Amino acid sequence: MSSAEGCSVLFEPVQIGPVTARNRFYQVPHCNGMGHLRPQAEAAMRAMKAEGGWAVVSNQETEIHPTSDLSPFAENRLWDERDIPALRLMTDAVHGKGSLAAIELAHNGHHAQNHLSRAPLLAPSELALQTAYPKQARAMDKADIREFRKWHRAAARRSREAGFDIVYVYAGHHMTLPHHFLLPQFNDRMDEYGGSLENRVRLTREILEETKEEVGDDCAIALRFAVDEMLGSEGMQAQEEGRAVVEMLAELPDLWDVNVADWSNDSATTRFEPRDGFQTSYIEFVKQVTSKPVVGVGRLTSPDLMASLVRKGILDFIGAARPSIADPFLPNKIKEGRIEEIRECIGCNICVSSDSLGVPIRCTQNPTMGEEWRRKWHPEIIERRVKEEAALVVGSGPAGLECAMQLARRGYEVTLAEAKQELGGRVLQEAGLTGLSAWKRVTDHRIYDLQQRGNVQLFTDSPLSASEVVELGIPNVFVSTGAKWRRDGRGKSAFHGVSIGLGSRVFTPDDIMTGVVPEDGPVVVYDDDQAYLGGVLADHLAQAGREVFFVTPASLVSPFTELTLEQTKVQRSLLEKGVHLNLSQTLANVASGQVTLQCVYTGRENSIECSSVVLVTQRMRETTLYDELCGTNAGLLNTLELIGDAANPGLIADAVYSGHMAARNFERNADDIDREFFRRELVSLEPV
Amino acid sequence: MSSAEGCSVLFEPVQIGPVTARNRFYQVPHCNGMGHLRPQAEAAMRAMKAEGGWAVVSNQETEIHPTSDLSPFAENRLWDERDIPALRLMTDAVHGKGSLAAIELAHNGHHAQNHLSRAPLLAPSELALQTAYPKQARAMDKADIREFRKWHRAAARRSREAGFDIVYVYAGHHMTLPHHFLLPQFNDRMDEYGGSLENRVRLTREILEETKEEVGDDCAIALRFAVDEMLGSEGMQAQEEGRAVVEMLAELPDLWDVNVADWSNDSATTRFEPRDGFQTSYIEFVKQVTSKPVVGVGRLTSPDLMASLVRKGILDFIGAARPSIADPFLPNKIKEGRIEEIRECIGCNICVSSDSLGVPIRCTQNPTMGEEWRRKWHPEIIERRVKEEAALVVGSGPAGLECAMQLARRGYEVTLAEAKQELGGRVLQEAGLTGLSAWKRVTDHRIYDLQQRGNVQLFTDSPLSASEVVELGIPNVFVSTGAKWRRDGRGKSAFHGVSIGLGSRVFTPDDIMTGVVPEDGPVVVYDDDQAYLGGVLADHLAQAGREVFFVTPASLVSPFTELTLEQTKVQRSLLEKGVHLNLSQTLANVASGQVTLQCVYTGRENSIECSSVVLVTQRMRETTLYDELCGTNAGLLNTLELIGDAANPGLIADAVYSGHMAARNFERNADDIDREFFRRELVSLEPV
Repeated sequence: MSSAEGCSVLFEPVQIGPVTARNRFYQVPHCNGMGHLRPQAEAAMRAMKAEGGWAVVSNQETEIHPTSDLSPFAENRLWDERDIPALRLMTDAVHGKGSLAAIELAHNGHHAQNHLSRAPLLAPSELALQTAYPKQARAMDKADIREFRKWHRAAARRSREAGFDIVYVYAGHHMTLPHHFLLPQFNDRMDEYGGSLENRVRLTREILEETKEEVGDDCAIALRFAVDEMLGSEGMQAQEEGRAVVEMLAELPDLWDVNVADWSNDSATTRFEPRDGFQTSYIEFVKQVTSKPVVGVGRLTSPDLMASLVRKGILDFIGAARPSIADPFLPNKIKEGRIEEIRECIGCNICVSSDSLGVPIRCTQNPTMGEEWRRKWHPEIIERRVKEEAALVVGSGPAGLECAMQLARRGYEVTLAEAKQELGGRVLQEAGLTGLSAWKRVTDHRIYDLQQRGNVQLFTDSPLSASEVVELGIPNVFVSTGAKWRRDGRGKSAFHGVSIGLGSRVFTPDDIMTGVVPEDGPVVVYDDDQAYLGGVLADHLAQAGREVFFVTPASLVSPFTELTLEQTKVQRSLLEKGVHLNLSQTLANVASGQVTLQCVYTGRENSIECSSVVLVTQRMRETTLYDELCGTNAGLLNTLELIGDAANPGLIADAVYSGHMAARNFERNADDIDREFFRRELVSLEPV
Repeated sequence: MSSAEGCSVLFEPVQIGPVTARNRFYQVPHCNGMGHLRPQAEAAMRAMKAEGGWAVVSNQETEIHPTSDLSPFAENRLWDERDIPALRLMTDAVHGKGSLAAIELAHNGHHAQNHLSRAPLLAPSELALQTAYPKQARAMDKADIREFRKWHRAAARRSREAGFDIVYVYAGHHMTLPHHFLLPQFNDRMDEYGGSLENRVRLTREILEETKEEVGDDCAIALRFAVDEMLGSEGMQAQEEGRAVVEMLAELPDLWDVNVADWSNDSATTRFEPRDGFQTSYIEFVKQVTSKPVVGVGRLTSPDLMASLVRKGILDFIGAARPSIADPFLPNKIKEGRIEEIRECIGCNICVSSDSLGVPIRCTQNPTMGEEWRRKWHPEIIERRVKEEAALVVGSGPAGLECAMQLARRGYEVTLAEAKQELGGRVLQEAGLTGLSAWKRVTDHRIYDLQQRGNVQLFTDSPLSASEVVELGIPNVFVSTGAKWRRDGRGKSAFHGVSIGLGSRVFTPDDIMTGVVPEDGPVVVYDDDQAYLGGVLADHLAQAGREVFFVTPASLVSPFTELTLEQTKVQRSLLEKGVHLNLSQTLANVASGQVTLQCVYTGRENSIECSSVVLVTQRMRETTLYDELCGTNAGLLNTLELIGDAANPGLIADAVYSGHMAARNFERNADDIDREFFRRELVSLEPV
């Protein structure tokens, strides 16, 4: 069924109020860390989606006023008319590729912190910020509400001026004033904006009506609404008030963009929500209530599922954020029957992490994401080779596979040699752990691609020495030999390592990932890495029936996963499996049958009886081959480059990026690479 | 002695290599959250220091290459020649006021995270990032070191092009490559850059020599060096290797800028380091070792101390970051004998917090800080009054005092009425707690100023009702009635409050701050505010001999204080006083003699026996007077404005700012205020 034919329903045009989308692929609003700081980059990135076949391309939440200032996060901004030209770049670029452009107007209420603007914080009720910053929002009085409505109306007008075809009213993700007014967890007003659902929905209704009145002749009005808070009876539920809201406002917007709250539930990772289409059961009622088109999401990557959602009358538009990031050309590939070429989203939320850091979006699967403008990288187009003819890639982890694939696409004769029995490197290892199986898509996609090509030779079980590399006679060598987890405890908290006594049973993540299971008895997992792996391993070992003590210098489990919206779920999962947490503790030493911990604040010591210890601290780059080649044979090679974790240990996303960069830069002039680095958007120095 | 005469030594010119400073006041490099994102704002802010009499005005750390990318923090940037024009704005502005401009070149090694540039991370040795982000730096090889030296040399050249008079080599704060190479806690190299001190100092020596060679004829070369890590024998100490480094490099730089590491020790708050000049004992050896001028810091605000440091041959320059932020006109005020007019730094590190948030600097004492360009605010100049003649300010907390003072400076007849016996509001309360006494400078400065003026009437013990306000016949009223801490547990984690059983003994921070001490028996301090006050109160009660249980939904004590560089010290202080920590727990309910807690992850409950509970959750705005005036008497008043915590509860800095803003905006056209909001620096849309 996943033929171009079976999917033809996905390519029907659909009318949305006064505008028409050319097909059913709809990139819903999503953050990208570019926003008002990088408007040219944003325009190019959104245009790439349009080029790839998304009929509607949305921007990201767009601050409508200085009282909704999300700094230092780089979202879109439309405080006044000075911000129109930057947004116009995007609409022109998207229109240029034949798609509609949508803008997500947002007032973030007390979700904004107004750190830049220092403006008062606004909310339906007296509310403290959710962060530890000691500022509070005041309950908006009637004058405040009138002001907000005026701001929203003005922003709608400016959106039309900026060329947008679809204008959003945004009541979702627990992030905006309309949503805060809707929900009793934020609204305890006693006036006509609080109490009954009719009252709580009033503000959303007013701004929908006013937006329509202001720009509805030219622009479609979309309502983004979270039908369910996923808090059970503690919150709004799809089958109760969620449905009632849709019934009350059914025909008011031109389009319903529905999902679940909060963001961590809407953008759930595969680690905690492996099902494609996981939101369907929440949103399927919507089309029964309204005659307007409906767009929904849920990490939809299967064309069959997409077509069936349309055929069954659940969705009119296939919404996507993450799948459109992993593959901007997903619609075109479906249309052209190139299903196997789709880079499927692995649901890791590295895209979210970059927004959380205030820097441009990146993607584990798609290393060109965020680089469309500054490096002029196109996900589907890469320069042909120049003079060189062949390349050897040693190691088939994420960097090696990506490098080999891109070199092959450039037309080189590519030889890829892997020392182990199977291709995949660290991805293969990590994807074997509890919750991470979807990560294997990173290698599946690349191995499949490489296998289709006539100019690629893949070798497994092929460890290579320096002399063997030289004997192969391939003058261009990319060394992707990865990194191993250290066994000596060296890490953030212990530069000189940890004292490990004779007879103590110490394991590394590599041991566990290759199937070693520490024998019965308590296991200490010491996580000085503080990213994700320590938490995953503790979960994995608890699942395997071990008693686990999780020790970390951090004050919470896997703090890095706050950036991927997973931290709460990670720590809950460990606690529910009975893992003992020893937080804010470093590992002072390991002895047989016991470890000594030290409080990071006071240095006070305490100990845990255990039969083994897993050290998740730092990685050691594997550079033996590279060093040998440098030392003795560098003169024989035209190119010798270390890539991926062997060059700089990082995320899988970093390794893929490193492999991609090496393939792109191969045969480029080194001075050009150095001088250009990448294009930058600088602040204007014109007097204001 | 603190006469203009006694201080004349401070106004002698001093030569620094090829340039001469007109006096001994030296604004050392400090971050300001403007940097490459807000170059016009940065130029104006630095120029204000020059106007105020600082003979040398430095910028902030300036990234010299994409491998030193501190995004999303807004530092200065000099990756290549495209960044010169933005920096030129500052040097022109500083020169325009007769001062020298200094640039702090920095390569941050693995202290940078390169989230924007995605460039490889560099370090002396294989090092993990200190954050939870799973990237590692590679040990720089010889080629990397050569590259770094090339970048530094190029940056020095561009600094001269940008007009700087002093160029820094930066080896301090644990933040830069030269410092990382110097210290065994980051450097375990086996080559000529590791091992002996001679080897570890090599890189600093090389870039000093090369910077001098490159620009030393025109620019002075400064070395910023932390003489002591304040880790005792675990780190570099002033009397051992610290001194040896100064001996080795004694005459190489044109100026020594010396301090202690890390940043939290250099920029210590008064809460943990109340002494002005607290760094003197570490740095006093330096002038004995070098003939070059020496600048040092240590929150120096007393002119007597300053003059004596020069006379005793300890310092040539009075260095300042924070005192120059609190009062950019400190040198001029000393020169003119206006010592009492100095706004003394209170050492709260709110300035640091804004940099940590990536937004423009602010200051509790000086509300114009960071607003020089965008609002055209001058700390010493304010517009004269227009038509109105008199104003009433009700309430003498930080907002009321600041508002009254600025209105008086504008020439209005000002009446300030305080309900209590003493002026000062919350500042008075908070400054009575353990560690916060220096905060009283906020009110001392303002009360003194108001007392000097003929157009101000101050009333204490004067609570006012609405009718009394109207009877006063003053048509312009600013209501600064503050906020009270809630007694019902409502806060971030409990919108509907906490169930409090009959007979339970519940206190608020206001109770404790007005001298109530819970009776003997364990006290629970429940901190859902998560800023600073909960931690201060726990400390205070423990000091008073109570057994304290500190409960918070946060994973650490006072997470807000991470932004002020205090968190480690706060939590250590509590632990060392025997306070019991119950982290990641909400308060489910309070009963007589017991509280029930709930794990934020699992909802699991547990309980603590206690005799009383202090609830630090949220504040309730005190608006009774304002509401009454609005309701019945608004027509009788020309102006009625709510300011400070009564309008939007926040930091003391926010309250001062609010009072200042109200005074500045008084008699301005509302549309102007609304339309302008403030000037913004937008990204250029020119094609690159």
